[in-house]
Amino acid sequence: MSERILIIGGVAAGLSAASRARRIAPRARITVLERGPVASYGACGLPAFLAGEITPQERLIVHSREFFQEQRRIEVLTGHEALEILPGRRRVRVAVHQDGRTQERELDYDRLVIATGARSRRACAQPPLLGVHQGNTWTQAKALEAALASRRHRRAAVIGAGYIGLEMAEALRRRGLEVVLVERAAALLGRLDEDLAALLEPAVSAAGVVWKPGTNAEGWEGGSNGEVRALQTSAGAIPADLVVDCSGLEPETGLAATAGLRLGPTGAIAVDDRQQTSQFSIFAAGDCTETRHRVTGAPCWMPLAAAAVKQGRVAGQNAAGGEMARFPGVLGTLTVAVFGREIGRTGLSQIEARQAGFDVAVEQLDAAAQAGYSGKRRLTLRMLYQPSTRRLLGCQMIGDAGTVAHRLDAAAVAISAGMRLEEIEMLDLAYAPSLSALPEPLQMAAHNARRR
Amino acid sequence: MSERILIIGGVAAGLSAASRARRIAPRARITVLERGPVASYGACGLPAFLAGEITPQERLIVHSREFFQEQRRIEVLTGHEALEILPGRRRVRVAVHQDGRTQERELDYDRLVIATGARSRRACAQPPLLGVHQGNTWTQAKALEAALASRRHRRAAVIGAGYIGLEMAEALRRRGLEVVLVERAAALLGRLDEDLAALLEPAVSAAGVVWKPGTNAEGWEGGSNGEVRALQTSAGAIPADLVVDCSGLEPETGLAATAGLRLGPTGAIAVDDRQQTSQFSIFAAGDCTETRHRVTGAPCWMPLAAAAVKQGRVAGQNAAGGEMARFPGVLGTLTVAVFGREIGRTGLSQIEARQAGFDVAVEQLDAAAQAGYSGKRRLTLRMLYQPSTRRLLGCQMIGDAGTVAHRLDAAAVAISAGMRLEEIEMLDLAYAPSLSALPEPLQMAAHNARRR
Repeated sequence: MSERILIIGGVAAGLSAASRARRIAPRARITVLERGPVASYGACGLPAFLAGEITPQERLIVHSREFFQEQRRIEVLTGHEALEILPGRRRVRVAVHQDGRTQERELDYDRLVIATGARSRRACAQPPLLGVHQGNTWTQAKALEAALASRRHRRAAVIGAGYIGLEMAEALRRRGLEVVLVERAAALLGRLDEDLAALLEPAVSAAGVVWKPGTNAEGWEGGSNGEVRALQTSAGAIPADLVVDCSGLEPETGLAATAGLRLGPTGAIAVDDRQQTSQFSIFAAGDCTETRHRVTGAPCWMPLAAAAVKQGRVAGQNAAGGEMARFPGVLGTLTVAVFGREIGRTGLSQIEARQAGFDVAVEQLDAAAQAGYSGKRRLTLRMLYQPSTRRLLGCQMIGDAGTVAHRLDAAAVAISAGMRLEEIEMLDLAYAPSLSALPEPLQMAAHNARRR
Repeated sequence: MSERILIIGGVAAGLSAASRARRIAPRARITVLERGPVASYGACGLPAFLAGEITPQERLIVHSREFFQEQRRIEVLTGHEALEILPGRRRVRVAVHQDGRTQERELDYDRLVIATGARSRRACAQPPLLGVHQGNTWTQAKALEAALASRRHRRAAVIGAGYIGLEMAEALRRRGLEVVLVERAAALLGRLDEDLAALLEPAVSAAGVVWKPGTNAEGWEGGSNGEVRALQTSAGAIPADLVVDCSGLEPETGLAATAGLRLGPTGAIAVDDRQQTSQFSIFAAGDCTETRHRVTGAPCWMPLAAAAVKQGRVAGQNAAGGEMARFPGVLGTLTVAVFGREIGRTGLSQIEARQAGFDVAVEQLDAAAQAGYSGKRRLTLRMLYQPSTRRLLGCQMIGDAGTVAHRLDAAAVAISAGMRLEEIEMLDLAYAPSLSALPEPLQMAAHNARRR
C-alpha cells in the first residue's frame, strides 16, 4: 500500500508542505486536516476584508478543496481537529465537526507534518463579553465582520499596536468607527526600533486614531445588555462598544508537547534545518515552529507567512523522501502598508543586535525616494551595522507609498550575503528619475557610515 | 601653494569627483570646466522636460554654480571648453565662450579628472536640416523645446528605440504629435533580450506610436522652406516635420586620445579600478571611460548615470590623495518607466552571456506582483542563470507601474553576491499582500529553474 503523509493544519505552511510532497511522491496518499471551516486562505488579507476592501470573505481563498483534490490529489478535510498525536502507533486522533455534531476517528500516518500555526494571545484572562473580538483567523474575522454588519458600532478600542493591531485600527477607521489604540509598550510596532517606529505616529494620529502608548489593557466592562461598554486600562476606562484584542500570537504547540516532541527555548516546536522534530517521522513547519536567525544563528520565533510557506515546502519535501531540503532561517523581514505609509524591517533591530552580543552602530537618514525634479516621495532609512566588521546587520524603513517593500528586499539580500558597507555603496542598482534616487538611500547610509 | 585639481566636465561624474575631492583635500584648489552653459543638471530628466512634465528646464539643475562656490569651494566654470591636454606640462588649453566671444586661456593642474561624458551618435552623415534634432544634452533639449514651442509640429520621426528613443517617443506623443519610431534592429531596447523587450510593444502601439523595426534611417529630405519634410529610410520615406535622432551615444574621447591616453577595446578611455588612466596624474570617470562587467570581468562600456556618479567619487578621492578607492565595475543595471510600463535589466543578457562563454539557461514567467485578492498588478520576469554553477547571471523584467525597479535591485544584489538559485529561493523577502507576492517572482523563477 502507498505511504500516507498526514498534515495537521491547512493554511500557509500545511498546504505548501502538501503540494511539495505531492510532487516528490506521486503515489503517496496525502491528507490535510484543518480544524477550521476553510483551508487555503490568505490570512494576511483579513484586515483588508474587515476594512471592506475585499468582499466577500471567500475572495481570500487561494485554492478550493476541489482544486486540491482534482489538481493535486490532496485530500483536504476541513472541520477536522487533531486531538492527539500517538507517535508510537503513528496515528492521530481526530474530532470531526460536521453539521453541529462531533465524531471521533483515527488516522494513520507514515510521515506527519505539524503546521498548527499560532494562536491568538489574549490581553487578559477575563472571558470575552459580547463585542469583544479578535481578528487573526478566518473564523474570528467572520464573527467580527458579522458584528460590524449587524449593528452600528461607534467606538472601538484596539489592544496592541503591532502590525496586526495597526491594520485593524485602520480597517475600523475605514468602517467609520472612532478608534483608540492602546499598547503596553512605549512605541508602535515593537519589532522596529522606537526611533523609527515613532515616525509612523503622525500618520496614525492624522487618520483620527487616538494612540495610547504605555497603557495596559486590564479587562472589559459590560453594560446591562451584556455588551461591552468600556475597556479597562492602566490609564482608566476607555468607552468602547467594540474591543478588538490584537495582543499578538503565540505558537500553537499543544499537540506537539503532548506527543512528547521537544520545544525550543522560544516555546515553539524545535526543528532542525530539515524541519524535522525530535521524532524521526514527524516534521513541523510554519508559525508553530522555532527557526534560526540568519544573522545571529540563534533560535528565534517569527510568525511570518513568507517563512511559513518556505518551511512548509522543506518539510513536505523531506517528509516525502525527496532530495534533502534545508531551511536556512529567517531575517524577520516584514513590511506593512498602513495609514498611507509603508513601513518595515529586515535583519536585526538595535535591541536584538545588542542582545545577541554584536557591537552595533546606527545610521539613519531621511532621503528622497526619487529625483527631486521628478517627485516628492521620501523615506526614512535606518541602517544597523557592525562597526568592527562593517557588515550590514539590519535595516528599517518608513516612507511614502511604494517606497519601502522592495527596497527592504535589496537590503535583505545584502544582509544574507554578509555584505560590507563598502560593497553596498558600490552596488549597481537601478536608476530612473521617477523610480529611484541617486545614490539610493541604502547606499547613501552606507557611505555616511563609512565616513565616521 | 595648494594643489590644484582640475576636472573637465560638469555633469554627473565630474561634479561627484569634485565634491569628493573637496572632502578629501580641504586645501586643494578645485576647478570644474564645463563647456556647456549649465553644470550639474539631471540629464536623465530631459525627456520629462520635453514631455512638458518638468518646467522650466532650470528645475533639472541640482546645484547652482553659487552652491558649489559657497558650500563646497569648488569653482565651476561654464562655457569653458577644454581644447587640449598637455600632460607633459600638466596644463589644459581652454576656450572660454562668453558673450558671443571666445578667448583662450591655459590652466595648470596637479591632478586632472576627465569626465567628458558621451556624445550623441548620428544616424547618418548628412548635416541636419531645420527640424532635425537630438535630445541628449541640455543644449540639444533646449533647442528641441524651443522648436516645439515656436511652431506647430504634426508628425515626428524618432530614430532609435533604445531607452532614450522610447522616452522621446513618449514625450512627443504627450506633446500631441504623431510619432513614428524607427529602429535598425528587430526589437526595442537592444540591451534586453528580444523575447522580453517584445512585451513592451503592445504598450508602445497602444500609445499611438507607429513602430518600425528593422528600418535604417538613411537621410532627411527638406521642403522648399528648408525644413525637414520626411525621413528617408530603408523602408521608404516617412513624412515628418520633426526628426529626433536618438541613435545613441559614444564615449567622448577626443581630448584623451590626443593627449596620448590609452583607449580600451570598447573605444572608451581605459582606466584601472582606481579610475586612473595610463597617465599617472590623470583620472577619468563616467561615460567617457571603459569599465569592467562584474559578472564577466571583461571590459565594457555602459553609459549610465548611477555608475558615472560612483566612478566620479572614486576618481575624486584618488585624485585628491585619499585612502585608495576602487570601483568594482557594473552590472549594467538599467530601468525605464515608459508608456505606463516599467522595464529594465541587470547583469548579463542572453546574448552577452553566450558571447562571454557562459553556459546559460533561461527561466521566464508571468507572475502576479501582489496577492490576487489585493490587486491585479503583474510583471514578467526573465532570469538568466548558469546551469553548471546554478548562479544567477542576469535578470530582466517588464511590468505594471511600481513593480520593476526595486525588484531589479534585489536581483542586482544577488548577482553581485554570486548567489545560487537555491539561495535565492530561500531569501527572506518582505511580504504584504498589496506590495509583494508569495513567493516573489524571482524566487518562483529560481524554484522553477531548479526543478528542471
